[in-house]
Amino acid sequence: MFKRNGKQTIFFESSPYIKSYASIAGKKESEGPFKKAFDKTVEDVYWGEDSWEKAENKFVKSAVLSALSKGGLTADDIDYIFAGDLLNQCTGTTYGLRIFGIPFIGLFGACSTMGLSMKMASIMVDGGFATRCCAVTSSHFCSAERQFRFPLEYGGQRPPSAQWTVTGSACVVVDKYDGDIRIEAATTGKIIDQGIKDANNMGAAMAPAAVDTLIAHFKDTGRKPDYYDAIFTGDLGSVGKAIVIDLMNKEGYDLSKNYFDCGELIFDDSQDVHAGGSGCGCSGLILCAHIIPEMKKKNLRRVLFIPTGALMSPTAVQQGESIPGVAHALSLYIE
Amino acid sequence: MFKRNGKQTIFFESSPYIKSYASIAGKKESEGPFKKAFDKTVEDVYWGEDSWEKAENKFVKSAVLSALSKGGLTADDIDYIFAGDLLNQCTGTTYGLRIFGIPFIGLFGACSTMGLSMKMASIMVDGGFATRCCAVTSSHFCSAERQFRFPLEYGGQRPPSAQWTVTGSACVVVDKYDGDIRIEAATTGKIIDQGIKDANNMGAAMAPAAVDTLIAHFKDTGRKPDYYDAIFTGDLGSVGKAIVIDLMNKEGYDLSKNYFDCGELIFDDSQDVHAGGSGCGCSGLILCAHIIPEMKKKNLRRVLFIPTGALMSPTAVQQGESIPGVAHALSLYIE
Repeated sequence: MFKRNGKQTIFFESSPYIKSYASIAGKKESEGPFKKAFDKTVEDVYWGEDSWEKAENKFVKSAVLSALSKGGLTADDIDYIFAGDLLNQCTGTTYGLRIFGIPFIGLFGACSTMGLSMKMASIMVDGGFATRCCAVTSSHFCSAERQFRFPLEYGGQRPPSAQWTVTGSACVVVDKYDGDIRIEAATTGKIIDQGIKDANNMGAAMAPAAVDTLIAHFKDTGRKPDYYDAIFTGDLGSVGKAIVIDLMNKEGYDLSKNYFDCGELIFDDSQDVHAGGSGCGCSGLILCAHIIPEMKKKNLRRVLFIPTGALMSPTAVQQGESIPGVAHALSLYIE
Repeated sequence: MFKRNGKQTIFFESSPYIKSYASIAGKKESEGPFKKAFDKTVEDVYWGEDSWEKAENKFVKSAVLSALSKGGLTADDIDYIFAGDLLNQCTGTTYGLRIFGIPFIGLFGACSTMGLSMKMASIMVDGGFATRCCAVTSSHFCSAERQFRFPLEYGGQRPPSAQWTVTGSACVVVDKYDGDIRIEAATTGKIIDQGIKDANNMGAAMAPAAVDTLIAHFKDTGRKPDYYDAIFTGDLGSVGKAIVIDLMNKEGYDLSKNYFDCGELIFDDSQDVHAGGSGCGCSGLILCAHIIPEMKKKNLRRVLFIPTGALMSPTAVQQGESIPGVAHALSLYIE
């Protein structure tokens, strides 16, 4: 699979391990179905800082510290850190990581960043360039909402297709030698733009990218959806998830049995989040608080994890542009 | 060098080749010292579009098309494209690349992106994951100025330490087998923050990151500055360059003989750009219009290329934060 020949999937020879992982979640996330599964939850949206952005940095720092600590590691044990987030200039990442002194590779994949960062960390480890890398991402409801949509004080009404940006950060340590869950393969997505222009309908903007990557993955590997115990897209929410099921069905792939979306899982129906959760933290928190624990319990042995990103720019949308999407898939397994 | 052990430098076993390259430059750049060396120059800051941001997308698209064409390639010959730019959500990249349908890995390294993207492309090729990858970046004076500083219409006076964001895009095709100039090694930078808070003094904000990466590179490789025929930092400008020479001198490294800065080279003194050029396009254009051509003529055989990025966020600066920097070094050679 090294020469693309139209293929987008890499199989890792060494199937790098997930050595450690951590999730730090906000208040609303701690009131949802996974309340006890996060490593830490934070009640205060400011986390004692004077801005939401500074709070987001603290989530990032805390997720990395927690993942290092759970793995018995220090920053010196990490060869490279791959990270990005939703904020302009990825400030959650840059300010959150500056204390660590780890060689840094900044990524921009919007809400696909958990998948993008884990994939790049796996490439670095599998290619012999590193022994151990961190993959990190974050989002914060307040910092994202004011950057991408309206001031929170405006109190704008949210349409049913709107999603709720997750407050939280997740960090995964990818290791050449040590761990139980392994990263088997990665499918890199293309930029897909089907003309959606509604910043309150991210699920519809991202669904075609998820479908494109899913089809590439199944074609490249010769697998069908039932090869996996579960398939998780990132943050399509209920609107985007329904589009994916429909479009995949038209392509001959049945996703009706084992397909979940992290954005649909992270909140309860009672939490008034309309179409579900979103943000880089959404798939990150579900990975660390649900998918990895279920794999460790052997309730899931083969998982396809596909974080999805809407490459949405308020400036571009104001200039009449549509919203491109991208999705990166990772095949995870445990013996 | 695979296990870090405090090291940040990777030597590539296969020393991937630069197969093709292209630079598209704006009007002011075309009036500077490299006027004839760009593949295309564009007089109109809008390039016939209705916004500067859309013009920037066109620079990106045009640079990729030009590099493909010069290499006798089509988009199908490219396994992965690594790209990023200065705009929020990297819209130069995402809208510029969406027509190509190439598996996409988005990067955020601010003005270090030319180095970051070439490094990641080299890792992908050297690790056996790809045969051929593109590395792309862009910047545009007007889109950057209004995003990071003031509306252009405001006509604010620029202090002497200010730099002029370069309008242009560059694309390099990294190939496993074919080319003349080779990428030998890469040193990944850390996030370095020495407390600079002045958005009109990016050179000072980035200089400590350049110094940190330079010292790591020389320590890891056992080389001295005179190993290279020339060392080029990205866009420190005259203020940042002087700081680098001074700080390196204190560390025992003499940069007085063979050290240049792309930001200082790209414009003439007569062009009223104060401390020099900046932006992702700055090091990209100098690489493609000066460094690569000089290497092909064997006037330079060994080059250390170190694009530097100020991870500057207007939001963070308004909240009183300092500006972190990062720098990524690539060792290039030709037999």
